[in-house]
Amino acid sequence: MIAVLKNGTSQKQIDSLINWIESQGLSVHLSAGEYQTIVGLIGDTTKIDEDLLRSLDIVETVKRISEPFKSANRKFHPDNTVVKVEDTSVGGNIFAVMAGPCSVESRQQVVEIAKAVKAAGATMLRGGAFKPRTSPYDFQGLKAEGIEYLLEAKKVTGLPIVTEIMNAAHLPMFEEVDVIQVGARNMQNFELLKELGRTKKPILLKRGLSSTIKEWLMSAEYIMAGGNENIILCERGIRSFDSQYTRNVLDLSAIPVLHELTHLPVIVDPSHATGASRLVKPMAMAAAACGADGLMIEVHNNPKAALCDGPQSLTPEQFADVMGAVKPLILK
Amino acid sequence: MIAVLKNGTSQKQIDSLINWIESQGLSVHLSAGEYQTIVGLIGDTTKIDEDLLRSLDIVETVKRISEPFKSANRKFHPDNTVVKVEDTSVGGNIFAVMAGPCSVESRQQVVEIAKAVKAAGATMLRGGAFKPRTSPYDFQGLKAEGIEYLLEAKKVTGLPIVTEIMNAAHLPMFEEVDVIQVGARNMQNFELLKELGRTKKPILLKRGLSSTIKEWLMSAEYIMAGGNENIILCERGIRSFDSQYTRNVLDLSAIPVLHELTHLPVIVDPSHATGASRLVKPMAMAAAACGADGLMIEVHNNPKAALCDGPQSLTPEQFADVMGAVKPLILK
Amino acid sequence: MIAVLKNGTSQKQIDSLINWIESQGLSVHLSAGEYQTIVGLIGDTTKIDEDLLRSLDIVETVKRISEPFKSANRKFHPDNTVVKVEDTSVGGNIFAVMAGPCSVESRQQVVEIAKAVKAAGATMLRGGAFKPRTSPYDFQGLKAEGIEYLLEAKKVTGLPIVTEIMNAAHLPMFEEVDVIQVGARNMQNFELLKELGRTKKPILLKRGLSSTIKEWLMSAEYIMAGGNENIILCERGIRSFDSQYTRNVLDLSAIPVLHELTHLPVIVDPSHATGASRLVKPMAMAAAACGADGLMIEVHNNPKAALCDGPQSLTPEQFADVMGAVKPLILK
Amino acid sequence: MIAVLKNGTSQKQIDSLINWIESQGLSVHLSAGEYQTIVGLIGDTTKIDEDLLRSLDIVETVKRISEPFKSANRKFHPDNTVVKVEDTSVGGNIFAVMAGPCSVESRQQVVEIAKAVKAAGATMLRGGAFKPRTSPYDFQGLKAEGIEYLLEAKKVTGLPIVTEIMNAAHLPMFEEVDVIQVGARNMQNFELLKELGRTKKPILLKRGLSSTIKEWLMSAEYIMAGGNENIILCERGIRSFDSQYTRNVLDLSAIPVLHELTHLPVIVDPSHATGASRLVKPMAMAAAACGADGLMIEVHNNPKAALCDGPQSLTPEQFADVMGAVKPLILK
Repeated sequence: MIAVLKNGTSQKQIDSLINWIESQGLSVHLSAGEYQTIVGLIGDTTKIDEDLLRSLDIVETVKRISEPFKSANRKFHPDNTVVKVEDTSVGGNIFAVMAGPCSVESRQQVVEIAKAVKAAGATMLRGGAFKPRTSPYDFQGLKAEGIEYLLEAKKVTGLPIVTEIMNAAHLPMFEEVDVIQVGARNMQNFELLKELGRTKKPILLKRGLSSTIKEWLMSAEYIMAGGNENIILCERGIRSFDSQYTRNVLDLSAIPVLHELTHLPVIVDPSHATGASRLVKPMAMAAAACGADGLMIEVHNNPKAALCDGPQSLTPEQFADVMGAVKPLILK
Repeated sequence: MIAVLKNGTSQKQIDSLINWIESQGLSVHLSAGEYQTIVGLIGDTTKIDEDLLRSLDIVETVKRISEPFKSANRKFHPDNTVVKVEDTSVGGNIFAVMAGPCSVESRQQVVEIAKAVKAAGATMLRGGAFKPRTSPYDFQGLKAEGIEYLLEAKKVTGLPIVTEIMNAAHLPMFEEVDVIQVGARNMQNFELLKELGRTKKPILLKRGLSSTIKEWLMSAEYIMAGGNENIILCERGIRSFDSQYTRNVLDLSAIPVLHELTHLPVIVDPSHATGASRLVKPMAMAAAACGADGLMIEVHNNPKAALCDGPQSLTPEQFADVMGAVKPLILK
Repeated sequence: MIAVLKNGTSQKQIDSLINWIESQGLSVHLSAGEYQTIVGLIGDTTKIDEDLLRSLDIVETVKRISEPFKSANRKFHPDNTVVKVEDTSVGGNIFAVMAGPCSVESRQQVVEIAKAVKAAGATMLRGGAFKPRTSPYDFQGLKAEGIEYLLEAKKVTGLPIVTEIMNAAHLPMFEEVDVIQVGARNMQNFELLKELGRTKKPILLKRGLSSTIKEWLMSAEYIMAGGNENIILCERGIRSFDSQYTRNVLDLSAIPVLHELTHLPVIVDPSHATGASRLVKPMAMAAAACGADGLMIEVHNNPKAALCDGPQSLTPEQFADVMGAVKPLILK
Repeated sequence: MIAVLKNGTSQKQIDSLINWIESQGLSVHLSAGEYQTIVGLIGDTTKIDEDLLRSLDIVETVKRISEPFKSANRKFHPDNTVVKVEDTSVGGNIFAVMAGPCSVESRQQVVEIAKAVKAAGATMLRGGAFKPRTSPYDFQGLKAEGIEYLLEAKKVTGLPIVTEIMNAAHLPMFEEVDVIQVGARNMQNFELLKELGRTKKPILLKRGLSSTIKEWLMSAEYIMAGGNENIILCERGIRSFDSQYTRNVLDLSAIPVLHELTHLPVIVDPSHATGASRLVKPMAMAAAACGADGLMIEVHNNPKAALCDGPQSLTPEQFADVMGAVKPLILK
């Protein structure tokens, strides 16, 4: 970490700063230039509060050289994390595919879809029981009942289940859930993250709509700081200036970037990123080709019932087609 | 609301759609063009699930003509909402100024600042007890103890207090708090919003970092749908591609836009938006000049103690200077 | 195209509007709702000035239903455009690979790279002679001399050459250039586009840093309106809020979206998009996997000469490795 | 400027780097830390090519400490630049107001508007003769004829004229124009900027739609590097993720930021930024309140002729009202 001091800083102020830095267990390299004096902080700067340092009267700017995340950092944990989920896993040799309906609507619906996606090669069943909706007037999900149906579908198919949590107070309902999803809007709900850090459940952490990669990893760090290292990252598109043809912009270069920065597995959700079922196949193929550890895909069983055929959902047949196209591209 | 149908839609499918729309209590206007058939939904479309309609097999696009928010909508509530807070208010004839430290650090600190900001003309005391921090390793606030100190400062100065909530489970600690703040990161924490809708407390709802104005109003709608109409909106800067000189971009045109769309009062936080104390004065002046109902400003009492002089905080003297500059610009 | 009229519009005003629309060769569908009157413009609305219509006193909003581009529109030209370039092409059965140095530096450099990229499978040689640089103090390219070196490399290897134009006045120097590139910063330099429309040269049109897909296609339309239909689109990353790990965000979902909207071929430049050589391989693979018609990749011949090994350039060996990885993924 | 070296860099490589830096007329400060070696470049780094340095094999990252612009930099030119325009000026004691129609449509129109805006207090007449339009099918302006009408309006009213250039080849037509405008889309048309640097004409340089403040100043630097220091910056809104209620986001904090960074005057265009005439007044007031050196406002004379009343244009009466509201807020 580097602090650039303001012109006119006195020697006494510099000494006082050095003392403070050393009191934090770091050592100091001083470089006094013609225009600027630069203070290098040497050692483990992870726990230095950057804002605090920047706030010092004598400091012009602070630049971090090393990353502020530690548990999630590949430098301190070179091997890939493999998140075990029942008999399957994410991040190891298996290409994880979580498929299922956006919302759980009925017992029959979810069991049927579970069977279909399993047949096509999915490794887990996803389905929303608690639904974050922009409008309070839109359908909010079946809640506990939805989780119950997912568990029945698991009993029938053996597929582990993934479903979203929106409130730490709901945790008791998630006891049998295999992977707990944190949605994009809650990526910086730090209170929820802390609670999840106290569980041992695998957590699927979606990227926030306008979260930087660093902020995303810091949110993973919140969970890991609590002792839970079973984290799966999920890229699901970021907000941009152009939303005419796709809901968000799928940031696929985040995949190789994350593989460098962290040992945590990264999957991709092309359904939410694009918001268009016909774009799911090419984007799933691209995600596999650039090294994603898996996919999360919306599949719906009843394309004939118009009201349920979400614009970003695939039919089971379309999903099988996507699986066929993706398989030869998987790098593992 | 308009639905544009796909080419090749059969008359039977159109009839079935019309039946469904009418079953929602709406009437229909059909316009069959050379290239497209357009279905207009006439009546109160607030509670129509736009995604559901878009998901229909036969629908190409859906365009909303009227706004999806109702309780917050000025059309249905033409008079300005005045949020009463103890002896003062936001949105009426008073220009509200909430000032105080980013973090409550000690009893003495907060009492001193409260006295100073009151003397300079602040109408409320703000201070953070629970602090959302990007890193789990940064200071997270004094929590309950912080609220206690704020209440003491209120006792001394009479200033009502504003402080942020991060978890609905903490609500009992906020019983004596005058205005509960929802921070930018929790603007779409719908579970928290619902809980706050069940209280009668004034809620200060900050805009999310990349929230559209519509999403922001939908979050206000979440609280209002629960029965709590005491909402103050707070513009605090949005994320952009350029963060070299200011942390965010303060979106001041949102002020007159919101005054058209909603009856709720809108204040501006130039401290967080810019992240730079020397930009607070010009941006506070601009906010007053374009019709803001008030300001939220960070003030710190101890500029000499380098570690506490946050880069976006003003000293009490600087704050008094800002107040002097803003006063002649207030439109009320 | 739909115009929603303001409340309180008189019948006389509506009649006058209908007259004007019909005078533009269109017909009208009127839908008078409880809250709004909607006017549908039926026919070829491509040449209707949307702003003009929106500017009418009585018009609240205008929404375009069909696309404002025509020559570039797949609806009116269903077959893929194949842009012929010497013995090769872009958009047909050949996967186009344009490789070469960011800047042409010397005769020897460019000839050596040309040989190397040809050996590895490139179909064209790219190299910058005129360089758009953010700073006037940075190297601006070898200009005419650079083009001369590229032509020599073409003579030696047979590879057609691609190089960027920044000024229509330079066109005479581009007479022997095979493909003229328009850079991101000039995507809306309409005067330049018009001049290029008067040539018959293949034009490589890069997407502007914050251009929407529609604006990009409208820029293609500028060239096509002049009579030149030999256009190759090139996605090269868009500006986002996060530029810490990649210079831009590569928008790969633009590839399948463009294949739906237009018949023009689309290639991808992973070098500029990411700004990092180690990300070129995964992004080139992803681009091929989602259907790109080709790639543009920076290759430099002299990794030992530190000053020339640009952070986004590959060595010829690395380029050969990328080619080997991409080949099995090509969909053609 | 700081270069952080990669781990494992040899002493020989470091020596070679130091030699190169010193050959550029700079001196070096070396700071060898536990994890990183940091090289500080001391002296005038303005003309160091940052990309070149970053491209060195041994360099991990480069961080600029001082600004890359020099002629535009307030550090080297502390006094405000006053751009003289006929009898008036921008940047001195006069609050500049450039008003007039988006497009020049006829002799009569522009003379009438010129008289009206002069009566209301405008200091210059603006009007578009060459119009950059997204679509090639939209009206492209009256061109030379438009400039002729502007000059006639100048003869009648004495108001200096401001009009946009899109092509350096048109410069001869601009000989009598008082201020030449460079539009947002041409802000990085470096060839045009270089040509304008060779004139002595005042240049109004609009900010690009997604240009950073630094890029904007670098574009000013292009013109100044050619010898022309008569530059007026114009903030006109930047592109964001939300364009539902305003076309762009007016970045008013750029005004005080620019006043710190540069000596050049800065004006604000609320008409283009918001795209809505009813938002021009509050945003003009906010711009004046935060220290803008002037305004550029669209005014149209014929609100009754529906086809001409652009959605962002004011009538002369509305303009006079804005002027009355702005006057008391001017800080000069």
